[in-house]
Amino acid sequence: MATNRQWIYAQKPTGQVGPEHFELRTSVMPDPGPGEVLVKTSLLSIDPASRAWMAGRTYRSMLEPGEVMAGWGLGEVVASLSPKFQPGDRVSGEFGWQEHAAVSAARLTKHDKHHAPEHILGVLGITGLTAYFGMLDVGKPRPGETVLISGAAGAVGSIAGQIAKIAGCRVVGTTGSAEKCAWLTNDLGFDAAIDYKQGGIARQLKTVCPEGIDVYFDNTGGEVLEAALARMNLRGRVACCGNVSQYDGATPGGGPMGVPGFLVTKRIRMEGFVVMDFYDRREQAEAALARWIADGTLKAPVDIIEGFEGMPTALAGMFAGKNRGKLMVRVN
Amino acid sequence: MATNRQWIYAQKPTGQVGPEHFELRTSVMPDPGPGEVLVKTSLLSIDPASRAWMAGRTYRSMLEPGEVMAGWGLGEVVASLSPKFQPGDRVSGEFGWQEHAAVSAARLTKHDKHHAPEHILGVLGITGLTAYFGMLDVGKPRPGETVLISGAAGAVGSIAGQIAKIAGCRVVGTTGSAEKCAWLTNDLGFDAAIDYKQGGIARQLKTVCPEGIDVYFDNTGGEVLEAALARMNLRGRVACCGNVSQYDGATPGGGPMGVPGFLVTKRIRMEGFVVMDFYDRREQAEAALARWIADGTLKAPVDIIEGFEGMPTALAGMFAGKNRGKLMVRVN
Repeated sequence: MATNRQWIYAQKPTGQVGPEHFELRTSVMPDPGPGEVLVKTSLLSIDPASRAWMAGRTYRSMLEPGEVMAGWGLGEVVASLSPKFQPGDRVSGEFGWQEHAAVSAARLTKHDKHHAPEHILGVLGITGLTAYFGMLDVGKPRPGETVLISGAAGAVGSIAGQIAKIAGCRVVGTTGSAEKCAWLTNDLGFDAAIDYKQGGIARQLKTVCPEGIDVYFDNTGGEVLEAALARMNLRGRVACCGNVSQYDGATPGGGPMGVPGFLVTKRIRMEGFVVMDFYDRREQAEAALARWIADGTLKAPVDIIEGFEGMPTALAGMFAGKNRGKLMVRVN
Repeated sequence: MATNRQWIYAQKPTGQVGPEHFELRTSVMPDPGPGEVLVKTSLLSIDPASRAWMAGRTYRSMLEPGEVMAGWGLGEVVASLSPKFQPGDRVSGEFGWQEHAAVSAARLTKHDKHHAPEHILGVLGITGLTAYFGMLDVGKPRPGETVLISGAAGAVGSIAGQIAKIAGCRVVGTTGSAEKCAWLTNDLGFDAAIDYKQGGIARQLKTVCPEGIDVYFDNTGGEVLEAALARMNLRGRVACCGNVSQYDGATPGGGPMGVPGFLVTKRIRMEGFVVMDFYDRREQAEAALARWIADGTLKAPVDIIEGFEGMPTALAGMFAGKNRGKLMVRVN
């Protein structure tokens, strides 16, 4: 009988997430029901949000131990009980961490084979759309402004920073090592980068943002948010994309000082967003991102781990800051 | 020789502000220079922002001990070296805490005598405009939504809540006593009110906002902000008007938990504003406020302390929650 390997979310982490919170299980091959499609996964995305899904209710209900671990992926249709899909179709969707998934056709997106698979799951998928709408629609940068991005070497941050450059801004990133700082400025065209692990974030920001910050694209929350608020200019905008500094720990820290004080005195707008809110405009964004990739304006760095076995290690490594750009696992 | 009494900001408070931080001084009558006007003050406004001006730079530079205490007032022109003003004109401006002030004509606003003086300094002045623009332009309430206002029995809060009622919302206020709660619901038409001093703010909010909060007009920051964020609905809006819970203390507390977490997951927009940003549209707002006052839709409660001597006591009393509505002092 055909089998299917799955990573089960086995235990809720109380601190940092690691391989001990997951179990590799061999199950029977799923059998698609009416309107469903059987997909063989080829690439699975590793996302910071996964950790937040374990901690509590977010924009989705909390993950419960015992379930197949949730996550997005790209794959190929192997059997279809839907007239909309044929075997061989390339599709993306929320497959979970498993080699095969039976998914309702309504929850799948079909992709032509023009684009590289890693781009479909990265810059042309949720990652790129998050960067695009968060930066342009929430941050609203204007040419000549200073834009700060935290988690700048990550999947969303690396794209968001380059989009701000395309918008004509001076772009500064925060990341967790001198090596990644150099990568941001040398390879991705950031104007400056700081290593938050060196401490003194406020002082470092003062040096690299001498004219203050107009837009802050916040992937991390925490200390960088607090320091950025103190350095924001009048009518600055904070696009709240994530809170990754708080995801992977036992007790969430307090909120940033300066809320609401700086918001009032400097008329700052802080606004959270989730990419799904912009889904009706995704074709416009995908077209722009694909054009920038094609003409070389935008680099879409990917960090691919080989082998389905490595999923939990890859997730833990992301919180340790090991990846550059979009992290994904090649299933076979 | 004619004299002029002034309250001098004598000492920076390290904790709660009180009369000991001010000194009553008798000075010589000021002599207006070219383009200036000599004003005899009749009403002086007592504002929470005064305490923030002492603590540090806000939207204005920090007050320095030794200066005449800053503040807004209403008065009458007694001498004018400007063609724009005549003795007897009713004017408002930043006079400071003094019986007479020599003020540049460019910094004065002339008022006709159609409106009651206390309304010019209150609901038709900065207080009412703050409530109007903060609620309608920043909060953007829609009919049927739930609107929460902290500091609801204060000058701005009492007007902001009534404007939300006019906009067709369910309106809930927070204040600091059962008596003020009853006043909000019985006299000002709030749908519900809670006494934050009873504690359990999150639990109380759950009871009075069973369908969540769509707009939070935040005058206080602190605990109420933290509890409100947890109860906000998807795409809720927080209009950040003030941070009065943090003004009158030695050490500012940490920021609210849930920033940026709730902002992301619930796509909340938090936005600070200062009434001056809307000054080009003030005539529109004044006309609407005057119409609502005239037709009885809007009540403009005022709390008037008699006698210039009482200025510091009035300011301290405001932080102790003694006033209802707009607090001002009648100078003579």
